[in-house]
Amino acid sequence: MSIIIDFDQLAAECLSRCEELATHTDTPGQLTRLFLTPAMLGAHQCVSDWMRQAGLTVRTDGAGNLIGSRPPSTIHSKTLIIGSHLDTVPNAGRYDGMLGVVAAIAAVKAIGHAKLPFAIDVIGFSEEEGVRYSTPYLGSRAIAGTFDINWLSTTDTQGVFMVKAIEDFGLSAADLCSTAYSPDRVLGFVEAHIEQGPVLARLNLPVAAVDAIAGQSRLKMVFVGQSGHAGTTPMVPRADALVCAARFIVAVSDHGRNVEGLRATVGFIDSRPNARNVIPSEVTLSLDVRHADDRVRRDAVGKLCDLASGFASSDGVAFAITQTEDQSASAMDPCLTEKMQLAIASTGLPKFSMLSGAGHDAVAMAQRFPTAMLFIRQPSGISHHPDEDVERADVAVAIEVLARFVCELAADSGGVDDLSNSLRSMGSTGFQS
Amino acid sequence: MSIIIDFDQLAAECLSRCEELATHTDTPGQLTRLFLTPAMLGAHQCVSDWMRQAGLTVRTDGAGNLIGSRPPSTIHSKTLIIGSHLDTVPNAGRYDGMLGVVAAIAAVKAIGHAKLPFAIDVIGFSEEEGVRYSTPYLGSRAIAGTFDINWLSTTDTQGVFMVKAIEDFGLSAADLCSTAYSPDRVLGFVEAHIEQGPVLARLNLPVAAVDAIAGQSRLKMVFVGQSGHAGTTPMVPRADALVCAARFIVAVSDHGRNVEGLRATVGFIDSRPNARNVIPSEVTLSLDVRHADDRVRRDAVGKLCDLASGFASSDGVAFAITQTEDQSASAMDPCLTEKMQLAIASTGLPKFSMLSGAGHDAVAMAQRFPTAMLFIRQPSGISHHPDEDVERADVAVAIEVLARFVCELAADSGGVDDLSNSLRSMGSTGFQS
Repeated sequence: MSIIIDFDQLAAECLSRCEELATHTDTPGQLTRLFLTPAMLGAHQCVSDWMRQAGLTVRTDGAGNLIGSRPPSTIHSKTLIIGSHLDTVPNAGRYDGMLGVVAAIAAVKAIGHAKLPFAIDVIGFSEEEGVRYSTPYLGSRAIAGTFDINWLSTTDTQGVFMVKAIEDFGLSAADLCSTAYSPDRVLGFVEAHIEQGPVLARLNLPVAAVDAIAGQSRLKMVFVGQSGHAGTTPMVPRADALVCAARFIVAVSDHGRNVEGLRATVGFIDSRPNARNVIPSEVTLSLDVRHADDRVRRDAVGKLCDLASGFASSDGVAFAITQTEDQSASAMDPCLTEKMQLAIASTGLPKFSMLSGAGHDAVAMAQRFPTAMLFIRQPSGISHHPDEDVERADVAVAIEVLARFVCELAADSGGVDDLSNSLRSMGSTGFQS
Repeated sequence: MSIIIDFDQLAAECLSRCEELATHTDTPGQLTRLFLTPAMLGAHQCVSDWMRQAGLTVRTDGAGNLIGSRPPSTIHSKTLIIGSHLDTVPNAGRYDGMLGVVAAIAAVKAIGHAKLPFAIDVIGFSEEEGVRYSTPYLGSRAIAGTFDINWLSTTDTQGVFMVKAIEDFGLSAADLCSTAYSPDRVLGFVEAHIEQGPVLARLNLPVAAVDAIAGQSRLKMVFVGQSGHAGTTPMVPRADALVCAARFIVAVSDHGRNVEGLRATVGFIDSRPNARNVIPSEVTLSLDVRHADDRVRRDAVGKLCDLASGFASSDGVAFAITQTEDQSASAMDPCLTEKMQLAIASTGLPKFSMLSGAGHDAVAMAQRFPTAMLFIRQPSGISHHPDEDVERADVAVAIEVLARFVCELAADSGGVDDLSNSLRSMGSTGFQS
């Protein structure tokens, strides 16, 4: 038996679906789709349809994760999870997250009716970017069983409690108790994602396996000074919270430039009361610090916190760190990553593995499940921006690699000879040697 | 005939009315009442009632100014305008603006049924602070005939056009054509206002006349860099708009400290996309610069613009000034101010006049009408802040001074002997010598 799989056509469909998903936005004129918003509900309707067309049984869990299930050929089988996230940053590109979800569905379509000795769950995670509730990986943490129930009582910038957002989405927070997958029932997790950087473009490679994800510190800092009238309050002694925060922002950039491989970013700032004629009294900002070496990263965070404290002290401003996250560098599973490398090699491409500077759902999933990641080249290297780009041919390779990865896993159990034979006999992506 | 006027009781009523006005807020838990919001409608209902109780005929003009009119005793008379503004900064105190409106109503009550050879219009201006549409004095400019019709097509931060806001308030933008008072029909404008600074408290004076208002420059600046992923984009060469803006904010503070008498403030900042894991691509900020000497102020603005341009150039960030206002220092009318000094002296207080560091509706009104201002002491000197304070005894003095000021004006025309006699025979504020 021979199966003809047109990966190029599947890739074209993926890109068209990414375009369609981009129309579901919280902010007309740009793509912004946050956790559990009405725009996310629209995205769920699309993705649910596509999942059903691929033969998957669809459900939404208590954390708003959209899950499409393909049954195994044998009972008591484990589950392979494939997916990425459906939320975006504000004014986002069209591929970060979404491409991994639609590519997973495409891979399931490529696999067709082949019998596999494990189930596949395609997951569109509800939240990865950490925008709405300042906490990232909400969706994958719910799946991994590391969702902290205290997050339910946090609020977004509009004052909406997370528990209310879950209910407004038509879900029940009580269902969060049953979102976690038991590690002994999970074969592994694999995520395809755009690289969000320039490495693969420079190396002229369409895809690569990820061997580790850089560690990351996220802090929320508050500077509290004294408001007053901008026209009548003398410059000395003002306690202007924004001036103090600005000194810190400059210092973060300067320090980041001085440490090899460090990324240090203040991406969020909120100044109050934020009126032209009032001295700012309270500034909240985010600090994001990343490095491949956890020690270097933690040293940088300590140094920056000392600087912030020093500026506050000299400006007569109170300073507090109100939230801290410290995510160690995450190694991917060597065994699954080797299977990913075999799948890449079977398309005729050279094996290559690389570090991810960005965090991904794979960080949360790797804490509980064997995890692998596949990066897809971005010609521009630009991400978190409307100019985010990807080539159709590279997407075709990624879908084929995902399908071949599934075959490699199945081959361990002696299954899917018909599928792997057909994949071996094809040349659709043009990379067979 | 003798009229008993209890200014202390009128002052107590004013403070109670300020408390009541503070409950009309756009933001529960703090006092924020912007131009033409539902909270402003609530404030109008209160103030309209108080105006009617004082015998005034109430209307709202096309710019949202609330106007209570007292007829003159003779036809073809001019109009004396007394008032201040009803809008607030975000998280405001209870007296900035509002106290001047309720004190004007109290002065009209004190005048009672005395015949005056001019009309009195008490105005609660709709907008002075420049928060919602980044342009100040909208209400008083409509009265003065200097409202720029192009402002109707500007938007607030929610994207609401001003023309829409006017309609949503139940008004018609077409009525803006008839808001202006003809200068030859206006006797003058007088505004009572809290000082918003520490001068009167230090001199132990309850009130003082204002002889001039400091000049003011307001600029809107935009820094445009390049967004990108905070984890994958190397520090060099980033074009981080927030880092560049932060360099400028620090420079504004440093420069302000180095020039005697200068006030230089960045009160507003908006950073986009404002997500923790995205390099900021666009920062908009306000710059407010004030000085008694217009030349010193303009020199400072030029220097700061050069600095901003230099930072932008070295950071690879585009820079533009998108809006500029240059308000020269405003002298108050010498003749009206002398009448104010006489009214102050007639209560037994020493004459004192001072510069206002803050801008007021009097700035816009002084461009067209003879204008005087009365400052009321603030024990703390704190303004644009919930801790704004005022003493009841000082408010009583202010109401008496306003009433006596009206008498001085009327005396020029030979009117109100009964009222001025009664004021001369009283000792309610305790400052008669």
